[in-house]
Amino acid sequence: MDFMHIYSDTPFDESAMGLLKAGVNKHQLVFPEKMAESVLGRSEAGPEFDTADIAFGQPDVECVLRSDKLRWLHISTAGYTRYDTKEFRDKMKSRGIPVTNSSSVYSDACVDHVFSFMLAQSRQLVPNLASSCAAGTDEWFGLRDSAVPLRGQKVVILGFGTIAKRLVEVLAPWDVDVTAVRRSPRGDEGVAVITSEQLPEALSGADHVINILPDNAASARFVNQERLSQMKKGSVFYNIGRGGTVDQEALADALNSERLAAAWLDVTDPEPLPADHVLRSAKNCYITPHTAGGHHAESSTLVKHFIENLRRFEAGEELLDRIM
Amino acid sequence: MDFMHIYSDTPFDESAMGLLKAGVNKHQLVFPEKMAESVLGRSEAGPEFDTADIAFGQPDVECVLRSDKLRWLHISTAGYTRYDTKEFRDKMKSRGIPVTNSSSVYSDACVDHVFSFMLAQSRQLVPNLASSCAAGTDEWFGLRDSAVPLRGQKVVILGFGTIAKRLVEVLAPWDVDVTAVRRSPRGDEGVAVITSEQLPEALSGADHVINILPDNAASARFVNQERLSQMKKGSVFYNIGRGGTVDQEALADALNSERLAAAWLDVTDPEPLPADHVLRSAKNCYITPHTAGGHHAESSTLVKHFIENLRRFEAGEELLDRIM
Repeated sequence: MDFMHIYSDTPFDESAMGLLKAGVNKHQLVFPEKMAESVLGRSEAGPEFDTADIAFGQPDVECVLRSDKLRWLHISTAGYTRYDTKEFRDKMKSRGIPVTNSSSVYSDACVDHVFSFMLAQSRQLVPNLASSCAAGTDEWFGLRDSAVPLRGQKVVILGFGTIAKRLVEVLAPWDVDVTAVRRSPRGDEGVAVITSEQLPEALSGADHVINILPDNAASARFVNQERLSQMKKGSVFYNIGRGGTVDQEALADALNSERLAAAWLDVTDPEPLPADHVLRSAKNCYITPHTAGGHHAESSTLVKHFIENLRRFEAGEELLDRIM
Repeated sequence: MDFMHIYSDTPFDESAMGLLKAGVNKHQLVFPEKMAESVLGRSEAGPEFDTADIAFGQPDVECVLRSDKLRWLHISTAGYTRYDTKEFRDKMKSRGIPVTNSSSVYSDACVDHVFSFMLAQSRQLVPNLASSCAAGTDEWFGLRDSAVPLRGQKVVILGFGTIAKRLVEVLAPWDVDVTAVRRSPRGDEGVAVITSEQLPEALSGADHVINILPDNAASARFVNQERLSQMKKGSVFYNIGRGGTVDQEALADALNSERLAAAWLDVTDPEPLPADHVLRSAKNCYITPHTAGGHHAESSTLVKHFIENLRRFEAGEELLDRIM
């Protein structure tokens, strides 16, 4: 394939940048004047974007829409809120530009993260680590009794993609009953799949509700006061998708009224939440700072995943993690 | 089978006691004047023990040894330190008294507990929950980079019984490389089994060392300074067996010198550790108060397990969780 310009805006460390430079081979890397602040931030692409055949990272949506040269967009995250609009999808489709993301780079880490939440909840890890009680005391009996076994419980997953698929795999040894909500069920999910119309019934029986929804027009505040009120008393809510899919005031109410036993959130809106936000003082609300996908040497994994997709692109093979 | 006396010394709640009374049917329950303080403590059996055909709980070792009526001992825990001596084993064998324990009552909860430790370590859950950093900051990159994926890592398990077997099951989706140490390998373990002679090499390659050893003459201070020094730099130690199997001063040194990245302990010696114990201030030492086997409604599960074994005992069937 011809010599191409590859736009890259992720602030890689030296080792990942070395891999990228070696991996693109004869092609020319193009960098914006100002790189994205992190893998989550977007870059403000200037004129250098207009020469790009391929974009890898988080380029500005307008730049992508107006480019007449771009042939492939590879997003450096699993989430892709800013590109997930009808206008953008239509444009990519009409111009035949495949859009891929990096979900398989982050899916293992995301699943380990949310599963560490689930087991920490089941084992009441946080209060246990804070206690130094003696056996036979009321506190000790209370801690032991507060551990609710995961085995055989009911789990509802909102959003079914690469991450949910892996989550189902790791949950297998616990014989849980998994139901997933997916916009367009495909039949290859391996678990019961429902649409949002059937959700109230599923929510009313679920012990764990795990939100992996992307943030777009259809999912904004999807977990609202009404849906939270449909959830079973004492159930637990997890979010590793995007903060914008949750009505956070309603979630704080559900926690403080003890309808929900706990919430474990890796994503919020905004990030980080201000110190005086209602969720910061809500009962049993555990928050990590959008680190679920993170893992040691992730930049190198990210670059290797892009390089493998570049090989496939050049060979005309099916791309990994294609989303549009 | 004849009418029997069943000695029971566990301080059950009303619901579990109801199950026990109903479950023993025509047989007579006998209680000591002073019940054990918890499922972990022993009872000081008085003359009432001498009428017992069956003992369920934690009866005094001397009482068991001198009884000429006892036909079966069912221990109410997974650990059985006080009974694990040559004298006791020999006596039970010569008198044909089967000894069973309750390991399958606790194994699920124990495994969930230690696995919550492993995932919390992998995802660095404790520092993540304490942080409210913004994306793109040094702290954020640091947190993300500190998460070491479990997939493909090497795990050494010290002690292979019911708990280890379940642990191997739940670890399967992570493609870890498991080696277990067992006094007498049986060949049905499903993982590589070594004896303690081969341990130095295994320790030097392991990322996670999980101690599930019972506490007896052979295992006392098994994890000593020498073995800790054989462990790989940056590896992690877990203990859900018994505290007496570890040289705790040597463990504190291994943590403070950063040979070990962390230790996660559910058991210590003594329990609880005094506030000024070296492990309480050791680097990355996480301690829960011997709650690993605990779970909601465990008393009822414990009683049901005994009742099922009573049915088997009466029918002359193979007993569950037989240890002697």
